[in-house]
Formats: sequence, structure tokens, C-alpha cells
Amino acid sequence: MSLTEFNAIDRFWKRASRRPQTVLSIGDDGALLANAPGQHWALTVDTLVAGVHFLPDTDAFDLGHKMLAVNLSDLAAMGAQPMAVTLALTLPKLDEAWLARLAEGFWQLAETFEIDLIGGDTTQGPLTATLQAMGQVPAGQALTRRGAKPGDGIYVTGTLGDAGLGLNMLLGKTALACPDAVLRHHRPTPRVHEGLALRGIANSCIDISDGLAQDLGHILRHSGVGATLHEANLPLSPSVKHYIQESGDWQLPLTAGEDYELCCTLPPKLAQHLPNSFTCIGTIDTEPGLRIQRGTAIVPLSPQGYQHFS
Amino acid sequence: MSLTEFNAIDRFWKRASRRPQTVLSIGDDGALLANAPGQHWALTVDTLVAGVHFLPDTDAFDLGHKMLAVNLSDLAAMGAQPMAVTLALTLPKLDEAWLARLAEGFWQLAETFEIDLIGGDTTQGPLTATLQAMGQVPAGQALTRRGAKPGDGIYVTGTLGDAGLGLNMLLGKTALACPDAVLRHHRPTPRVHEGLALRGIANSCIDISDGLAQDLGHILRHSGVGATLHEANLPLSPSVKHYIQESGDWQLPLTAGEDYELCCTLPPKLAQHLPNSFTCIGTIDTEPGLRIQRGTAIVPLSPQGYQHFS
Repeated sequence: MSLTEFNAIDRFWKRASRRPQTVLSIGDDGALLANAPGQHWALTVDTLVAGVHFLPDTDAFDLGHKMLAVNLSDLAAMGAQPMAVTLALTLPKLDEAWLARLAEGFWQLAETFEIDLIGGDTTQGPLTATLQAMGQVPAGQALTRRGAKPGDGIYVTGTLGDAGLGLNMLLGKTALACPDAVLRHHRPTPRVHEGLALRGIANSCIDISDGLAQDLGHILRHSGVGATLHEANLPLSPSVKHYIQESGDWQLPLTAGEDYELCCTLPPKLAQHLPNSFTCIGTIDTEPGLRIQRGTAIVPLSPQGYQHFS
Repeated sequence: MSLTEFNAIDRFWKRASRRPQTVLSIGDDGALLANAPGQHWALTVDTLVAGVHFLPDTDAFDLGHKMLAVNLSDLAAMGAQPMAVTLALTLPKLDEAWLARLAEGFWQLAETFEIDLIGGDTTQGPLTATLQAMGQVPAGQALTRRGAKPGDGIYVTGTLGDAGLGLNMLLGKTALACPDAVLRHHRPTPRVHEGLALRGIANSCIDISDGLAQDLGHILRHSGVGATLHEANLPLSPSVKHYIQESGDWQLPLTAGEDYELCCTLPPKLAQHLPNSFTCIGTIDTEPGLRIQRGTAIVPLSPQGYQHFS
């Protein structure tokens, strides 16, 4: 039997629901979600466009992983427990092997976090994936971009700049061989558990999708505060350290996108409750703007990072 | 100030929330929705691709209307009260006048039904719009494709085939002038109130997006029943009647997509509770398959209609 938009759904996307909140899943005009008392639904949507968000020759497995990861990262930044997603796929053609790889990458990550795929749409056109993720967070406990306070420490998960270095390598912009950084570019890890650990502790949170300077800039603008970072405290992988030594491009970990780490602010006395994966990289100030201490100098940073249509 | 993906959101898409369920709207990593006790969230997502779902020269106002209408139609088919949507827009460029028209078409319909736009994503690439709509329905009262029973009457809203006739005219496939049908193609009316009126009455429901034969076919397959339609009872506009007389293409109202009328089944004794906009067009049978009575003959119908990748 040849592949059609209908049997492709059955073959690759229909699986038994894992979450009791899923009342009705794939196969009707829409899906139905129940919710637990005292919980809000957190919702986020991201589109990945071929040639813009991923290289056209990207392995479909990596794309399947990434389209889910970037949305789970947004839910993590809200302190939400991911539950369910919908997937709108626009495909040039129904390529069975390619779709199988895409689904494999998606489900490997989805099963890790017990995510239900509850609906979607398959259309023909230029390759694009729009995924919407829904999660639950206790009413009043969602983390947002506003709420950072002078005196807060600024904390990030993991290491910074790896995804950007990986992309530079793929684009031939650096001669360094750093397969670990390329893997970070292809398969970002959404910091779901870290986001849940921030409930009731963090004053503000965002995920780093467009570069630390730009994303932290959103927190500063929404909260009406400024910040000073300390270059010496930035968590850097051996590959990124090596790259900076070789190239002098010290701004990479501040401006490169797609790390999908969390950046949050909280009173330093609460930092003892943070998982080990967080590093303090600076402090929230009353003085507007973003600065970084390099040695003994304080250098202003513009909130630059990735922008479409620029 | 030149238009960027960020100030375009402020300018065209941010409006005060109308629904108390909207706890957090555009401007953070995601949105937050509260819900009323005893209610489920109904969710649906549809993508419109330029050159596939709409002609490349479509007025942006019509596209803004249609991308919302097709999703509200899915919620209507579930008997859900629409509340909120997210919008993922992929645009070749930031054309201010075009975006203003798109937003105008979107908001004219959104305000009619008091819909909040709570989030989205703007990306650069081939023109595509993916909209996800969320609505509420009392737990256990959602209408689905299963549940049609032998003896049920089959009812549809409005008239059939108009959107298909309008498209035929735009494509130069008919010489008839029928601006009313073209308008039906460009600006379908989601049958939200009619869907709400079906709660507690209808045994099954679907919206007619891919053609009556194909969409009713989904009800028949999911419910394990068959159906017989009566050609003489099909609700047809003067334009479609005239087109059929001229062309002999009597299958148009059965196979043409995008009417976005509702098709439901219910026991005839409950039909007295239906709004006037419904017409009985046939009966659910135990015998599998779909048939139509034409004069004294019974003609089998294949569940044909629009398919991607065919």
C-alpha cells in the first residue's frame, strides 16, 4: 500500500497515550485535554524552516529531535511539566524512509519525557515543521521574563556557545574539529527537570535560543533592570575554550543561538536549592543595560543575537 | 523605525485579552491558559501553504480570515467554544502593508468570536501559516466522528459546493460569473454557534473541508456504518444549481472541498432542536458504504475528495 497523508499518520505518529490528561488524541477534528485542579496549561509554538533553522541536508532523525526539543525548552523555561504536543508538517514529498527517521528522532525524545502527540496536520509544500507543546504548571508558579530583581544572581544550565560552534564548523567557518559541538547543534537537550526545579525559587527565567545577550536582554527589558556578567564565570566546554583561544572570538558564548540552556535569576541565598548543572554568571543591577567584566574592564554588551529578516 | 520580527508582533498581533481563561499572552516563552471546572480543552491545528491551500495572489485579508476560519470550523465540529489561538507565520519578507491586511482579516473574524491570540512564532521562509485553536467543551460532551447510528438523519449547515465553484471560477475552469461563490472560497464562515447547538443532540459531527463524500466517509468508517444521501435534498445555492445545469457536474457539491459547513448525524426526532440552517440530506444505514439516490436510481459514491501528495 502506497503512503498517503492518512496512512502516514497511522504508521509514524499514532501511539498509545501516556498521559491521563489526553482524553482524545489523533484521528478526529481535534484533540481533547483534561486538566488537574489548580493547574494552568502552558503553551508554546516554534517553527523550523529548512535552510533557515536547519541545513537542508540535516539528518531527519536530528530534525525530529530538534523540533520537539526547542519547544520543550520553552516549557522548561516556564517551569512547566510537558504533557502533549501537536505537529504541523509541511513536506515536499512523502518519503517513507525520511519520515521514519524523523519519527524515530521525535519519539526517542518524546518517550524520555512521556509526551503524547495528540494531533497535527500534514500538508504538501516547502519543508517546514511547526510544533506546539502543552505542559502543566501549578497556578501562580509559572516562571516568566519579568520579575528579575537587583541583587539576583544570574544562573545558566550546562555550557554556552557549543551549538553555535557546531554550526560554525558545519558551515566551514572554523577549521576546528569538534563533533561534540556539532552534536549539541543537532540535538539540544531541553532542560525540563532543571526548569521544574526552579518553581518557587527563580524570580525570572528564559531559555537561550537566540544567544545569551539577546535572551537575557528580554529578562532585563521585561523586568526593568540591568545586569553585569563575569566572563571568567561563563561555563564553557573544552571545545569552546579552545575555539576562543584560537580565534579570539570571545563573544561566541554570548551571541551564538540554539544552546537551549536555561537562564534564570534568583536571590543568591536560594542558590543552594539549585541542581548542580547551574552556574552563576553574574548579577542583576539597578543600572539599565547589559555589561560584562573582562579582567578588570567592564565592557557594554548590545543585546545582539539572531534575528529573522535582518 | 523599520519593521522587525519583534515590533511586527507588537504592531499587528498584540491586543488586550478578551477571555478570562487567558492568564498570560504574547510576550514570554509561552502562554498560560486557565480552565473552568468540568471543561476540557479542544485543540486543533491547520496549515495553509501558499500555492497549495490558497492562490499566491490571494488578498492577505482573505488569508487572515481563512487561516482562522478553518480552525474555528474544526472546533465547531467538536461542539467547542473557541477561546484562544496561536499563530506560526513563515514569511518570505516583512511587508508592512501585506501584514496589516493579514492582521485586519484575522482580527475581524477573531473579534466576532472573541478569540484571544495568545502566542506564536514568526520565521522567514516560504509563505505558510499554521494556526492552532483552543476551545472549551464540557467534559463528555465533545462531538466526534464516531457514534453515528443506523437510523440517524444526516444534516448539513448552509449550502454545498459553493467554495469549490468559486475556486473553479478563479482557476478559469468555468466561464460562469459567480462572485458569491468566490467569496465563499475566500472567506468561509465557521459554524461556531451551530456546533454549540449540537451538544447533547448529535451522535457524530465533522466539518466539510475535503468534500462531503470524503468527510462523511470519515464518520462512516469511525462509526462502522453506511449512509444513503438524497440528491434532491442537497442544499444548493442558485449559483451551484446553475453551474450543475450548465456543466452536468452533479458531483461538485459532494466532492468539492473548503465549504467548511458542518455535517452531523442525529436521531430524526431530535431534529426539532436544530437551528434553521441545517438541512437533512440522508440517512445512516447498517449497510457499509456511501450511496446517493438520484431520481429512482441508487448510485454508489467513492469517498473521494482532496488529498495531498496524490
